[in-house]
Amino acid sequence: MNHVSSVSSPGNAVPAPGQVTTGPICGSRKVYSAPDSHPEILVPFREIALDPSAGEEPLRVYDTSGPYTDTGVTIDVAAGLPRLRSPWLEKRGFEQVVPREVRPEDNGGASGDRLVAPCPAPHQVLDGDKATYVTQYEFARAGIITEEMIYVAHRENLGRQQAVDGAAARRKDGEDFGAAIPDFITPEFVRDEIACGRAIIPANINHPELEPVIIGRNFLVKVNANIGNSAVTSSAAEEVEKLVWSIRWGADTVMDLSTGRNIHNIRDWILRNSPTPIGTVPLYQALEKVGGEVSKLTWEVFRDTLIEQAEQGVDYFTIHAGVRLAHIPLTAERVTGIVSRGGSIMASWCLMEHRESFLYEHFEEICDIMRKYDVSFSLGDGLRPGSVADANDAAQFAELETLGELTKIAWAKGCQVMIEGPGHVPMHKIKANMDKQLKHCHEAPFYTLGPLTTDIAPGYDHITSAIGAAMIGWFGTAMLCYVTPKEHLGLPNRDDVKTGVITYRISAHAADLAKGHPAARLRDDALSRARFSFRWEDQFNLSLDPDTARAFHDETMPREAHKTAHFCSMCGPKFCSMRISQDLREDAQRMAGMKEKSREFRESGGQVYVAAE
Amino acid sequence: MNHVSSVSSPGNAVPAPGQVTTGPICGSRKVYSAPDSHPEILVPFREIALDPSAGEEPLRVYDTSGPYTDTGVTIDVAAGLPRLRSPWLEKRGFEQVVPREVRPEDNGGASGDRLVAPCPAPHQVLDGDKATYVTQYEFARAGIITEEMIYVAHRENLGRQQAVDGAAARRKDGEDFGAAIPDFITPEFVRDEIACGRAIIPANINHPELEPVIIGRNFLVKVNANIGNSAVTSSAAEEVEKLVWSIRWGADTVMDLSTGRNIHNIRDWILRNSPTPIGTVPLYQALEKVGGEVSKLTWEVFRDTLIEQAEQGVDYFTIHAGVRLAHIPLTAERVTGIVSRGGSIMASWCLMEHRESFLYEHFEEICDIMRKYDVSFSLGDGLRPGSVADANDAAQFAELETLGELTKIAWAKGCQVMIEGPGHVPMHKIKANMDKQLKHCHEAPFYTLGPLTTDIAPGYDHITSAIGAAMIGWFGTAMLCYVTPKEHLGLPNRDDVKTGVITYRISAHAADLAKGHPAARLRDDALSRARFSFRWEDQFNLSLDPDTARAFHDETMPREAHKTAHFCSMCGPKFCSMRISQDLREDAQRMAGMKEKSREFRESGGQVYVAAE
Repeated sequence: MNHVSSVSSPGNAVPAPGQVTTGPICGSRKVYSAPDSHPEILVPFREIALDPSAGEEPLRVYDTSGPYTDTGVTIDVAAGLPRLRSPWLEKRGFEQVVPREVRPEDNGGASGDRLVAPCPAPHQVLDGDKATYVTQYEFARAGIITEEMIYVAHRENLGRQQAVDGAAARRKDGEDFGAAIPDFITPEFVRDEIACGRAIIPANINHPELEPVIIGRNFLVKVNANIGNSAVTSSAAEEVEKLVWSIRWGADTVMDLSTGRNIHNIRDWILRNSPTPIGTVPLYQALEKVGGEVSKLTWEVFRDTLIEQAEQGVDYFTIHAGVRLAHIPLTAERVTGIVSRGGSIMASWCLMEHRESFLYEHFEEICDIMRKYDVSFSLGDGLRPGSVADANDAAQFAELETLGELTKIAWAKGCQVMIEGPGHVPMHKIKANMDKQLKHCHEAPFYTLGPLTTDIAPGYDHITSAIGAAMIGWFGTAMLCYVTPKEHLGLPNRDDVKTGVITYRISAHAADLAKGHPAARLRDDALSRARFSFRWEDQFNLSLDPDTARAFHDETMPREAHKTAHFCSMCGPKFCSMRISQDLREDAQRMAGMKEKSREFRESGGQVYVAAE
Repeated sequence: MNHVSSVSSPGNAVPAPGQVTTGPICGSRKVYSAPDSHPEILVPFREIALDPSAGEEPLRVYDTSGPYTDTGVTIDVAAGLPRLRSPWLEKRGFEQVVPREVRPEDNGGASGDRLVAPCPAPHQVLDGDKATYVTQYEFARAGIITEEMIYVAHRENLGRQQAVDGAAARRKDGEDFGAAIPDFITPEFVRDEIACGRAIIPANINHPELEPVIIGRNFLVKVNANIGNSAVTSSAAEEVEKLVWSIRWGADTVMDLSTGRNIHNIRDWILRNSPTPIGTVPLYQALEKVGGEVSKLTWEVFRDTLIEQAEQGVDYFTIHAGVRLAHIPLTAERVTGIVSRGGSIMASWCLMEHRESFLYEHFEEICDIMRKYDVSFSLGDGLRPGSVADANDAAQFAELETLGELTKIAWAKGCQVMIEGPGHVPMHKIKANMDKQLKHCHEAPFYTLGPLTTDIAPGYDHITSAIGAAMIGWFGTAMLCYVTPKEHLGLPNRDDVKTGVITYRISAHAADLAKGHPAARLRDDALSRARFSFRWEDQFNLSLDPDTARAFHDETMPREAHKTAHFCSMCGPKFCSMRISQDLREDAQRMAGMKEKSREFRESGGQVYVAAE
């Protein structure tokens, strides 16, 4: 298939080839709101309708899903998404350039029927080389607030107005391990966090379709989902659908880890249809270009690939420049050696050539290229541990220190930087990772895979890693890279992707709650009120996955009447604690004076009633 | 259905009515081993066969599954399991008594076709009233080591001999928050832990079929699964199968939370076929006996139910004696009120009667009954929080302090005690629960539900709670009560039970690793070695759920040849980091001197190689 068009399909239907999933998430609708000072900057949210007869206002939640869930937008993947950043970018003095010509090797030599056609959506390539400021980091350092900063400030402020009374109390309630989460996020606060390197907005100037996202430990914890075709052919439609499906369930960024044929053109389709920052590992494509032979990798091929992908609009690149020749012997006694693909490729290259990594040696040139387009660094953890036995070892931490050195170089060159981390780490070794990262990498945002807290549960590694992800998110990790149930075993399918994203939304949200984010608990409280009042529909719609919640309920209590039942199938009416507890409250006579009694009890140190013995 | 017989069924087949699941877990077999000093005390383990050509010895793992996975045992649920404790119990001077007569209300008035026949397995009821020592606590205090103590010591020592060289180093590697996990477990250590109340062996003298289990924070973290029919009829065969299925996947204890008809007779079938401690909440049956009307509950009905269930052989009772009248007003402003079934029943009773709880007032008599049979206390947390908003509030902690008072009374009466806890608790409030429990309850073992770390994911609460369970297990909780994906929504089916148990085995194991349990990492390391050597079959068989691991792998790489492939479907051969990393190692020429280089590098502080700039 080499042409993709789209037709709206109902909520969760599996799209036929050529379709992507559109339509609102059950029980909610897309809304837009702008900061008072900038009515033209429209930020999307998802509004969940709640039962007004229960005195509930609709609840707005953070929305990663892009225009696909907006019933007012007609999706045409051949035309690409609206380019909301274009007016902002036009003012910045970037030069429109003739893009690098696409070569057969960019698509792995695919031709004829096997060649995926390029995405016909118009794309004008910008080059920031001659502009004074290109990157968000440069603007921030210069004291300039960009539209992207205003956008993310408004996006992150969601619910804080509602939570205003309790905000200070809630933050005091949390434990943020030295982060500095404010009651309100101002554009100035965003600028300041970016200027000191504590946060990034991955936003390539060639990705005008982007809805900006901020990644940093003083903001909401973010989730990345990985997609990508493998050597087995995968169509552009399938890849765009994987993207749309991931962000529908809450992925904040998406990494395209494709290898094999057609990756240039498929990446084009993805970028022109992505409202979300897209990350890649350029090394994969560079290796494809030299026929998969590590010994043929050169700086020139790699450099060419960076420019190719930067012009397409990729927002962040994983660069494994921390895998130095000297680190490789440190992995010799590991149980699982090197488990990062990029790390093993670079280690292999270094040993074959017996010389220092070309990524390390050419790091400043890489910075210059990435700065021109504002591609953010995701400094790769090529030596992350692949088993609990290898966690926190000399190889891992030697690389982390190198990433810290590289961070300073990238900042000096004007680039935005985040740092990749964990892998397999048992619980008691997680915090040391965060502490060392903060120290060695100067508070640049941390972006971790899991960590998986045990090795013994293949098939359930979304869970082994959700435990570690929630903890490291709490400790300060800014973005969590998801793990699906298929990790270590096979390629995730549609259900696995959804399970992975929802699982990681749980970890990220648990972290936000524990950090004391001022508005995080609004959704928990709304759902708990719905639960206690037996508002089943509200409970379903407030959940991370309304479809699954409803389906599980309906398995045992399928009838419509049960949606208003004041009990559920678990305990039945006689044993329903919530019903009993609620009945008690409604019994005004017995409850009269309860608050007074409560006060007396506290004041007396618990001795109001004396038990008969 | 009122008769149950059994036929062996292959591994994971869903049993037809009348069958229970038997046969070994894939890739393993049941083995027995005895401590040198007591060759007659045979303790079951599961031995996983590994590829001997890779130099791997078979790995033994803790085994909760009972005789059902032993191909040498013929299962006949009508005859019940072998009574391995009978010879031990016979020596202790207990009196054989005529049991309390079964009354129609014990089975909810079921009659005729609707009455489940009693289990025909012979059952002689013992009464320890006149014996000097009945409970494991009493024996322990008297300095006597029981067979149960020897049994659990041998069971817990698994792998410690293999780990002997590294044991001390590994324990130093962990963080156990003041627990005192020894390199080896001796029967004397077990006795001492029980004597000071830090551990229990729930083992009713009327449950001779039991394979003893120890619960305490210096032992492996345990997992409980809940089963039970609801008001909707459920057959004895189904309930026994739920038990067998739960322990097959790793439940250490099982609570029968049945309500409705036939609960006496179904409990009989469960106990006569359970190698695992069985817990109940006697209040549920007491309420059934008075037609579900809380106002008709009396001490007499409750007392009668305790004796009824104790004679059947229930190993531990949840007793909600900490829900005192004075605590109830403390719940008045909660978002979700009282969410424990037992708690809400008792709160309702206290308010209706406006008097102190009969459980609290008659606590010493309850102790006297439970001591007679060595039924352990599981002091119920009737006021556990049902939402993150209610976590760690005055009601919850007031009850916890009461449970601490009651613990001392129960100990003085010779009883074994554990304490129930959590519910919904955000991550930053988990540790306070453990710390307060240790302080107020004098180190009696903690037994917690989850905790769920957020309220917003109904349908995924096994995951929201696995995060909290792993953490609280690490902090010192001795047993974790599982949560299934159906929590808050409906009754778990067979798949949900398995998912819940496996998920909680992950949490418990992650906790053991983090605590620095001397042998916990043996399985992780064996699996990681298998992974790194592409021994796929070993990797599947070492996993908590070999069937799912194999099925996931086969979805993308179904052919037999792929089971020996040195790559997997995720990355394909060219991008397989482990293959590349392994190839490097095998290349003797390049690897020569790696260890030496590694040493030099460490010694030089990382400056052996100087990067070209």
